[in-house]
Amino acid sequence: MVKQSAPDTTRRSEKSRRAIYDAALDLVAEVGYPKTTIEGIAARAGVGKQTIYRWWSSKAEVLMEAFLDLSEQAAREAGPEETYTIPDTGDLATDLKAVLRLTVDQLKDPRFEAPSRALAAEGVVNEQVGRAFMAKLLEPSLQLYVDRVRAAQGAGQVCPEIDPRIALELWVSPLAQRWLQYTGPITYDYTDTLVDYALHGIAPR
Amino acid sequence: MVKQSAPDTTRRSEKSRRAIYDAALDLVAEVGYPKTTIEGIAARAGVGKQTIYRWWSSKAEVLMEAFLDLSEQAAREAGPEETYTIPDTGDLATDLKAVLRLTVDQLKDPRFEAPSRALAAEGVVNEQVGRAFMAKLLEPSLQLYVDRVRAAQGAGQVCPEIDPRIALELWVSPLAQRWLQYTGPITYDYTDTLVDYALHGIAPR
Repeated sequence: MVKQSAPDTTRRSEKSRRAIYDAALDLVAEVGYPKTTIEGIAARAGVGKQTIYRWWSSKAEVLMEAFLDLSEQAAREAGPEETYTIPDTGDLATDLKAVLRLTVDQLKDPRFEAPSRALAAEGVVNEQVGRAFMAKLLEPSLQLYVDRVRAAQGAGQVCPEIDPRIALELWVSPLAQRWLQYTGPITYDYTDTLVDYALHGIAPR
Repeated sequence: MVKQSAPDTTRRSEKSRRAIYDAALDLVAEVGYPKTTIEGIAARAGVGKQTIYRWWSSKAEVLMEAFLDLSEQAAREAGPEETYTIPDTGDLATDLKAVLRLTVDQLKDPRFEAPSRALAAEGVVNEQVGRAFMAKLLEPSLQLYVDRVRAAQGAGQVCPEIDPRIALELWVSPLAQRWLQYTGPITYDYTDTLVDYALHGIAPR
C-alpha cells in the first residue's frame, strides 16, 4: 500500500495540473486575460487556490505554461513530420516556405486562437507579460530560425555578414503583424512571397 | 448678437471636442481600453453623454479619432520637415531610413505610448477594433510606403514584379513586432539594417 502512494500522488498531481491548464485556457478564451484570476482557475479546475500557488507564482505563469503544453500536445498529435523543428534539405527557401505554411495553419487553428490572442494582447500593455511571452513562447521558435540561417550561411546560401537574428524578422514579423493587427490576409502564397523577397531583396540584381 | 452665435457655438464645440479627446486619451492610459467607457469620458471631459453620442457612435470611434488628432498635433508641432510624408530624394534606401528613424522616435514618445498600446492590445482580441485601428491609423501610413515603392519601381530601383504592399512589410512589420511584443531593441541601427536587408536580400548576389 505504501509503495503505491507515490505513483498515486503523481497521477493525482498530473490530473490536477491538466485540469488547471484546461481551466486557464478556457477562462482566458471566455472572459479575457484581465478578468481571469487564480481563484477563477482554481474553482473551474476543482482544486484549491493553494494547489495552484504551490506550482506557479502568478496567473501569467499558469497561462504561459498551459499554452506551451497545448502547443506541445498539438505537435505530438501532428506526428513526427510536423514537429517544431526547421528542416534542412539544403535549400533554405524550400525549408522556410514549408515551415511558414505550417505556421499559417497553426495561426488558423481555433484551439490556439483565443488564448494566444489574449496573452499577446496583455503583453502589448503589460511589459512583464510581454517579455515572458517573448521568452517562453516566441524566442525558442525564433532560435530555430537563427540556427537554420546560420547553417545556410555555412552552405553559402546566405551572406556571411547578415545577422540571422534580424534576418528571420523579414518573414516572421510580417506574418505576426498580419495576425496581430489584421494588416492583410494570411495565405501560403503570401508567406512564399515573403521568403522570396527576403532572400533576394526587392532591388534589381 | 445673433450673428455671433454661430462662431460661439463652433468655439464651444471645439472646446468640448478637445476636452473629450483629452479625457479619452487620459482614461485609456490610466485604466486601459476595457475599463474606459463613454460615461467615464463624458464625466472627465465635463460634458453630457449625449454630446459624445452626437458625434461618435462608440468608444472605439472616440479613441481612434482622439489618437489621430494627437498624431496630427504632434506632426504640426514637429514642423514642416517632419510631416508624415515619405521624401523622394531619388534614393529609396536613404528615404526609407530617414522615415523609419522618425518612426523610432515616435514609438518612444511617451504621449503616444499608453493610448496606442491600449488600442493595439484591444485590436488583438477584438477584430472590429483591430480592423478599425488598421483602417484609420495604419493603412494611411502604409499607403505612403506603397506610393514611394511604386515611384522607386518607376526609377528602376525596385524590381517591377515586386508587390509594394508586401514589400513595405519587410521594414514596417519587424519594427511593429519589436514594439508590440518586445522581440528586440528598437534603434536607428536596427531600422537601417532592415532597409538594407529588404533592398538587397540576405542571399549572396
